[in-house]
Amino acid sequence: MPRIITLTTDFGLEDEYVGVMKGVILGRAPESTIVDLSHTIERQDIRQAAMLIRSAYRYFPAGTIHLIVVDPGVGSNRKLILLLAEKQLFLAPDNGVLGFLLDSENFESVYEIQCPRYYMTPVSTTFHGRDILAPVAAELARGISPTAVGPAIDHLKLQRIRNAPPKIDREHFMITGEITGRDHFGNLQTSIAGELLDSLYGKAKNRVNVFVRGVTITGIVEAFAHRGAGELLAVVGSRDSLEIAVNKGNAAKRIGAEIGDEVRVTAGKPQS
Amino acid sequence: MPRIITLTTDFGLEDEYVGVMKGVILGRAPESTIVDLSHTIERQDIRQAAMLIRSAYRYFPAGTIHLIVVDPGVGSNRKLILLLAEKQLFLAPDNGVLGFLLDSENFESVYEIQCPRYYMTPVSTTFHGRDILAPVAAELARGISPTAVGPAIDHLKLQRIRNAPPKIDREHFMITGEITGRDHFGNLQTSIAGELLDSLYGKAKNRVNVFVRGVTITGIVEAFAHRGAGELLAVVGSRDSLEIAVNKGNAAKRIGAEIGDEVRVTAGKPQS
Amino acid sequence: MPRIITLTTDFGLEDEYVGVMKGVILGRAPESTIVDLSHTIERQDIRQAAMLIRSAYRYFPAGTIHLIVVDPGVGSNRKLILLLAEKQLFLAPDNGVLGFLLDSENFESVYEIQCPRYYMTPVSTTFHGRDILAPVAAELARGISPTAVGPAIDHLKLQRIRNAPPKIDREHFMITGEITGRDHFGNLQTSIAGELLDSLYGKAKNRVNVFVRGVTITGIVEAFAHRGAGELLAVVGSRDSLEIAVNKGNAAKRIGAEIGDEVRVTAGKPQS
Repeated sequence: MPRIITLTTDFGLEDEYVGVMKGVILGRAPESTIVDLSHTIERQDIRQAAMLIRSAYRYFPAGTIHLIVVDPGVGSNRKLILLLAEKQLFLAPDNGVLGFLLDSENFESVYEIQCPRYYMTPVSTTFHGRDILAPVAAELARGISPTAVGPAIDHLKLQRIRNAPPKIDREHFMITGEITGRDHFGNLQTSIAGELLDSLYGKAKNRVNVFVRGVTITGIVEAFAHRGAGELLAVVGSRDSLEIAVNKGNAAKRIGAEIGDEVRVTAGKPQS
Repeated sequence: MPRIITLTTDFGLEDEYVGVMKGVILGRAPESTIVDLSHTIERQDIRQAAMLIRSAYRYFPAGTIHLIVVDPGVGSNRKLILLLAEKQLFLAPDNGVLGFLLDSENFESVYEIQCPRYYMTPVSTTFHGRDILAPVAAELARGISPTAVGPAIDHLKLQRIRNAPPKIDREHFMITGEITGRDHFGNLQTSIAGELLDSLYGKAKNRVNVFVRGVTITGIVEAFAHRGAGELLAVVGSRDSLEIAVNKGNAAKRIGAEIGDEVRVTAGKPQS
Repeated sequence: MPRIITLTTDFGLEDEYVGVMKGVILGRAPESTIVDLSHTIERQDIRQAAMLIRSAYRYFPAGTIHLIVVDPGVGSNRKLILLLAEKQLFLAPDNGVLGFLLDSENFESVYEIQCPRYYMTPVSTTFHGRDILAPVAAELARGISPTAVGPAIDHLKLQRIRNAPPKIDREHFMITGEITGRDHFGNLQTSIAGELLDSLYGKAKNRVNVFVRGVTITGIVEAFAHRGAGELLAVVGSRDSLEIAVNKGNAAKRIGAEIGDEVRVTAGKPQS
């Protein structure tokens, strides 16, 4: 059964770095299908890579191998790990990028990659994505057991990224979160999950107020098209969390928001 | 027989949006081959997407499935359609992007996509490319009949994009068209087809005058290399229409032309 | 056995040019696997394309077909060639981009492409990548003999790119080379091979001085992480040559270096 291997890196597209990883993979596992998730993660931005892979993996079938190479610590003593969760396999440096999977109900196990017989020789000190992670991904695609890549390690010792969870004031029906990202369209992603909005406001979601950067948006709509062209709006986006957007426009430019800015949701006045 | 699925979107490459569509497709149709046509269509620019797919589809084999997701109306009541023409399949919102195919001699039929049993669940209101079009493309690649995606609809009711055809003054051997696009090299594409130039001027093509933005170019050449480096030139380009270019340079920057600018071709004086 | 075909072009990603080459290839050789090396080579920059393919090919398995389309001479009388070396196949215009392979111990032979029966019809005068090179690559992937693409030609008549080799002053333990490129991270690549550093300095590499743009860097380190965040450093990078970098930063911006700038390495004072 051919396997899917996804790639997420901060390598950009102008150099040969992504291509040579594919060459290494296809030389060993020619039947695998490689999918680019993104190669334009901001340089060394582990947090952005973590959010992207967290948003993406669930759309891939069981057995998919995800390879994430955002690796500012290459050449230091940071570990490389293989993590099994959600019936998928994740390969990355132990720098927190996979930390979110440790909270998954379907977390299974984690291994430190220690299998020089599979590495490229010689192993460079600057490009472990090509020399270690790509060949190990290929060997996994060919069917070696996860236990063949190295010893199981204690998941409690792995690096984590601390994400401030939104603050919930149930008495005053208020949620305080933050801007966590912006996409190609200028839509602003937030730390406030759609499920949280549902649980606190239910059908009154369409009457809440959303405050960000001195701007107030009233009501969370179902779709961009439910506001006029050029209008600012709040919506539960394709990542299942609150987004601030402009229909046919660019919210990030419009309101000048930046990652880390506070976003507050409050119950609106009942409409008469 | 494995099928080719092409993707044309305005999603950019920095987010996971393209990758998750591929995950959805490969989860259902693992044998399909996915080809990116472009993901850097200007945001919501239906016209640009239409010109790109029109220029590209003929280079793909019969049975190819083209998926175009430039969808400013997502979440409104715009339809999603499957259009059969030229022995290929086209999936897109009904926003005019496929309108050019209705004029094809080899147009076959069009269907409204109405087959929730194939959709992702739940279907988001913001990303039908992932939740509807990708899974339907995969099911078509696996061999379901086009009639399984929904009812046939009247092609006369589909959205069209109005492209102003060039004006032809046969008495004065004059064609008036416009700039329709610019490519990565700064070559300027026009609405004037190579065939039209042939029919009006024949071999005298190499003596016509081309006027654009106050600049006159004399003669349509066979290839960029037929003018010196840095020289402005007119050529019938790889899209089979008149292009304004600079050999080893950037015509768009040189003459400051913009999409919509008038381009006029007149018969030149015979050279002695 | 399915074949890998890599693509290296200056086409950018916004137009359909890359996609239609893939359509042509997959229409004839549906089992082939296409890998993008880079499509953002600077327009018409043959030298950059040569450095990229030289750095990349060795990571692909025997039998891989590399197609390089940086072709400022399209439509002139420049030849198109098929070159066999290193158990791989290379297709490109004869403009010097493959010249480095002529020096390989494993150079085998070179053919002028002259096989109109395989071309697209009609052949355009502006896009031989699509109309000649892509179909020929596909036919090679399907198994035609290299001799079927055209006559063997004398490799001594091929175009070369002259790269100034670094000057080596063995008496004074000094190497003078130059900046040859910069990557996505702002790392500066040089013409000074890691092997040369080893042969001249041996283990004293960690005490040499590297001069570039008025800046002195002491010591060549093993990995980025061996210097503090934000520190300038010299390292033998993933292309096996000397690179100037900033740990978690951008060396090109930091020191304002440009391609062609001199880089000098001298023996440092022994540390006491």
